[in-house]
Amino acid sequence: MAADEQLREMRKELESLRTEVGIQADIHAVRTLQFKYGYYMDKCLFAEIVDLFAEDAVLYFMNGIFRGKRGARRLYGGASGLDGPAYGMLFEHIIAQDIVDVASDRKTAKGRFRCFLQGGVHESKRDAPPRIPAQFLEAGIYENEYVKEDGVWKIRLFNYRIVYQARLEEGWAHSGREPLMVTPYTTLYPENPRGPDELRPDPPVWPQTFIMPFHYPHPVTGQRVPADR
Amino acid sequence: MAADEQLREMRKELESLRTEVGIQADIHAVRTLQFKYGYYMDKCLFAEIVDLFAEDAVLYFMNGIFRGKRGARRLYGGASGLDGPAYGMLFEHIIAQDIVDVASDRKTAKGRFRCFLQGGVHESKRDAPPRIPAQFLEAGIYENEYVKEDGVWKIRLFNYRIVYQARLEEGWAHSGREPLMVTPYTTLYPENPRGPDELRPDPPVWPQTFIMPFHYPHPVTGQRVPADR
Amino acid sequence: MAADEQLREMRKELESLRTEVGIQADIHAVRTLQFKYGYYMDKCLFAEIVDLFAEDAVLYFMNGIFRGKRGARRLYGGASGLDGPAYGMLFEHIIAQDIVDVASDRKTAKGRFRCFLQGGVHESKRDAPPRIPAQFLEAGIYENEYVKEDGVWKIRLFNYRIVYQARLEEGWAHSGREPLMVTPYTTLYPENPRGPDELRPDPPVWPQTFIMPFHYPHPVTGQRVPADR
Repeated sequence: MAADEQLREMRKELESLRTEVGIQADIHAVRTLQFKYGYYMDKCLFAEIVDLFAEDAVLYFMNGIFRGKRGARRLYGGASGLDGPAYGMLFEHIIAQDIVDVASDRKTAKGRFRCFLQGGVHESKRDAPPRIPAQFLEAGIYENEYVKEDGVWKIRLFNYRIVYQARLEEGWAHSGREPLMVTPYTTLYPENPRGPDELRPDPPVWPQTFIMPFHYPHPVTGQRVPADR
Repeated sequence: MAADEQLREMRKELESLRTEVGIQADIHAVRTLQFKYGYYMDKCLFAEIVDLFAEDAVLYFMNGIFRGKRGARRLYGGASGLDGPAYGMLFEHIIAQDIVDVASDRKTAKGRFRCFLQGGVHESKRDAPPRIPAQFLEAGIYENEYVKEDGVWKIRLFNYRIVYQARLEEGWAHSGREPLMVTPYTTLYPENPRGPDELRPDPPVWPQTFIMPFHYPHPVTGQRVPADR
Repeated sequence: MAADEQLREMRKELESLRTEVGIQADIHAVRTLQFKYGYYMDKCLFAEIVDLFAEDAVLYFMNGIFRGKRGARRLYGGASGLDGPAYGMLFEHIIAQDIVDVASDRKTAKGRFRCFLQGGVHESKRDAPPRIPAQFLEAGIYENEYVKEDGVWKIRLFNYRIVYQARLEEGWAHSGREPLMVTPYTTLYPENPRGPDELRPDPPVWPQTFIMPFHYPHPVTGQRVPADR
């Protein structure tokens, strides 16, 4: 083979390798982006949270759909009055079990994560926001989407669903049928200044169960795993 | 150096780089394979679980050894009658702390993971399978092996050991000496239609403790860390 | 472009790619190093723990600063009398949510991790070390630093802070104001044979809260997120 042709070939190989390495770096960027979200949530760093979102982000929470960073600002707007760490308030967000898949053009990604939350209010805290239980556990799943803009990964779709919530004293076998801390939205923004832009059907609440749709096929069979069964 | 020689050298470097990138991609594939196992287990997706295994897989569970996908099908065969998500049934498998090492030929890998399970049955569930406690915690360690067949990673050795189980109301300080939900196997397949192919000695059960053997040496000294002490 | 020039360029590209791949491999090495720390802590493998540290390591624990591997040996020296797994003793260290950043020279790295610990003593254990609660939870954050020496990553700065500790029976809403198992240091080594080399101000203890300083800027804005608010 002529040196010229060899060079052309190697350049091609180099290019494909560069893409593969880039995808690994993207995966790392996206998984740590979601982990950082968790660390900020621990301490109610809501301005930092909002800045993780793309301008055209969409956020699903309960039966509400929030649009754009403005929507994010309402959702994380400190309805509780919290902003930053506060004496006696606990919100430990363990985020784990990352399944991040980056699109071949490396501009978007999807990620599934699990959250395990320990939250509550210490008995010595006098002025706690109402409706936060003394101590509770929450488990949930994220199936988020991410976008890379000017080389920076951001959250574009925030799609979190609660699997269960339980007061620590009672446990998940005895959870009530009402979600803790939150109630389904009934009025939209701007009538409700913290409300969503749209409503969607109420997601099922534990003890109902559901499969959070998988963004990825079965890793061995390649088949789609349906969520509706 | 002649251009020819330079080209030869670069080709070599490119090859070694390709292997290194491939190993990173393999690590990612194996860790997410195990994480996906966890998400399927959450919802009793047993057909999907069985499809994660290689044809010649070996599964250790309790004092039983199960061979092949047929063995996997018996182990995950829904002895409980469960198959898919069910009202009021909780099996949250948090899988974390991945230590994945890929063989230099990139055909096999070993992985250590931790599992932290929250399980149980909501009080409103009327027809729960017997023997599942109302609410329990379980911790365990996987030391699995994986194989790549036609470019697809599968579980070849499933080696899980329970560290502790505890009813949430009692906690691990007061666990009974009998494992929850399961009893050691006494009869083999086919006499026992869900039985193992072979028996092995009963693994220790909490409050006994053990070191799950490490598949990797100490990361600094390079010494093997023995499990028998 | 002449073949010579092309070769020079490709060599440069190859070099930069090699660095990028190396960084991915470093991230993997550092995150698994910290995860291995957790698995060793599960079983009180203190000699293995000490070997994870660089000779010039610094360790912050409570209000103590320990210097060097000798300091590490005092800190992990088995004040409890424990060394290796023991009947009825539980110390499950779930380590997760890794944020590892490798310096561009690939000689040092920083890592933030979360720990969620389930610990205690089974009721059937007769000779348990004093001061270990029957069953407790602990959450904490590491902001560690790592160094690569002769190609081997080691922990150089160990910086762990407890977010909360709670007896399982009481939960974090009812934690006492004294830390479990430990008391602030009052005397230094060598007067205290297990003491630190230096004291520092007592870190806040739950129900006080704090932001563990982030070693990384905000991933979207690039701004430093201050810890003092």
